[in-house]
Amino acid sequence: VVKSLINGHVTDVIDVSNRGLAYGDGLFETIRVIDKSPVWLGQHLARLRRGCDRLQLNLDETLLRAEISSLCQTSDAVNHPVADQDVADQVLKVIITRGAGGRGYRPDPRQGVERILQLSSYVADPNSSQQGIALFTCKTRLARQPLLAGLKHLNRLEQVLAAAELPIDCREGLMQDTAGLVIEGTRSNVFFVIAGQLCTPSLAQAGIDGVLREWLCDVMSVQIRQIGSAEIDAAQEIFVGNSVFGIYPVTSVHGVNGAITPFQVGEMTRACQAQLHQATGIIG
Amino acid sequence: VVKSLINGHVTDVIDVSNRGLAYGDGLFETIRVIDKSPVWLGQHLARLRRGCDRLQLNLDETLLRAEISSLCQTSDAVNHPVADQDVADQVLKVIITRGAGGRGYRPDPRQGVERILQLSSYVADPNSSQQGIALFTCKTRLARQPLLAGLKHLNRLEQVLAAAELPIDCREGLMQDTAGLVIEGTRSNVFFVIAGQLCTPSLAQAGIDGVLREWLCDVMSVQIRQIGSAEIDAAQEIFVGNSVFGIYPVTSVHGVNGAITPFQVGEMTRACQAQLHQATGIIG
Repeated sequence: VVKSLINGHVTDVIDVSNRGLAYGDGLFETIRVIDKSPVWLGQHLARLRRGCDRLQLNLDETLLRAEISSLCQTSDAVNHPVADQDVADQVLKVIITRGAGGRGYRPDPRQGVERILQLSSYVADPNSSQQGIALFTCKTRLARQPLLAGLKHLNRLEQVLAAAELPIDCREGLMQDTAGLVIEGTRSNVFFVIAGQLCTPSLAQAGIDGVLREWLCDVMSVQIRQIGSAEIDAAQEIFVGNSVFGIYPVTSVHGVNGAITPFQVGEMTRACQAQLHQATGIIG
Repeated sequence: VVKSLINGHVTDVIDVSNRGLAYGDGLFETIRVIDKSPVWLGQHLARLRRGCDRLQLNLDETLLRAEISSLCQTSDAVNHPVADQDVADQVLKVIITRGAGGRGYRPDPRQGVERILQLSSYVADPNSSQQGIALFTCKTRLARQPLLAGLKHLNRLEQVLAAAELPIDCREGLMQDTAGLVIEGTRSNVFFVIAGQLCTPSLAQAGIDGVLREWLCDVMSVQIRQIGSAEIDAAQEIFVGNSVFGIYPVTSVHGVNGAITPFQVGEMTRACQAQLHQATGIIG
């Protein structure tokens, strides 16, 4: 069940000549909404601003903030009611595109941006947060592209191909880049405890700079560095995280050769989950 | 002026939850239409089929062919008339997406594909075909991703960024990959005559395998190989080509340092243009 707002108007459709469809010419954010309040809204908007700078998109942030506030406050309004019994838990997707444009890659610098907001109900998965998940090592690798690394842009075919690989018993997939470095999950960032130190891969060449990752690097001592796939087996703890589901401990890694390596849910993982719950209300 | 057909229905809008918009989860073709007849239709559909295989999209090709034929034949129909005086020259864009889907990268294997057809009038540029164009060397580089190389998929942010670099007097931009190899134009393939031999870059790691390029490799002796940027200055002739505009000779290359290297329009370029005109009716 979704309520959509496009440039402030309640509608479910976009023009077929939208550059977001034609070229993936835009960005997005996926934001957890608890009790009508978007979690880490400032951090999501800051990442969006960095992306807009890089793609030269003229986003009116004040207008976007007002629309987000309006949509979240009136989310049980008449037009497209959120029928779910539990309206307290929702997820807001914000898509920013360069709007409708003629044929041709070249963007028109005078063109305004299009703001697409979609609010859906969200069903949390406390089981994954508490008992942990299996992590599948994907064959699909991420290209190295420093111009786009970090951004949550709309060119996500690599993630689609990687997610298609996941067997039913694995809730997340682990992606390496074409150089063999560990980068991230298909929809999350990944964290390791190696020799007692919490660390997460550098995203200078590939990957999405997640809002939860950014927050965690602020509140905990996290080492950001290149992590090779050979280091995974040496980890004492592994967890994946994003700003919607929070933190899922990893209890096994399924390797490309079929081997399954078990992991314990350790103290560091539980400490990060506790901090997260305190800061945001997200369980896990 | 555009007439659009989506899954066979005349409409200009798509559902906001389309995966083509969300993730660029799809492919496209841009086809020259002369006197209501799509040029190289078989080759375009063959490339689309290769892309659908790679992305696991279940395209109904018979249905697509029927819709293309219907749209091209009735292009001066009442609904959205092509107002242009010269209806003989048109361009047909075909977008194939995985259709509307919920949140999440993982594709549903049972999901049908969405066929989006857009027919527009086309204004040819005989001046560029005859006198040639200036080619700008773009700073934006292409990532190396063998899983997606060759395909004309919807993840085209690199081309958008490169096209945004073009100065007004350069009709096309030349792109290298992140390893420094010459790959293609922003919207065309590139061909060089080096030591008398016609050659074009290998697209194993990056680039779009163009329909004109495929045709040219069939009818001429073209060497496909890695081409370094240092070889550009040694070329006797350079031209760019795609299946819509045909072949534009390159009369100068603008380097990243601002230097401009002039090139002659040579016999090989003219021979390729003559063959093209004979085979398709495209001038240039």
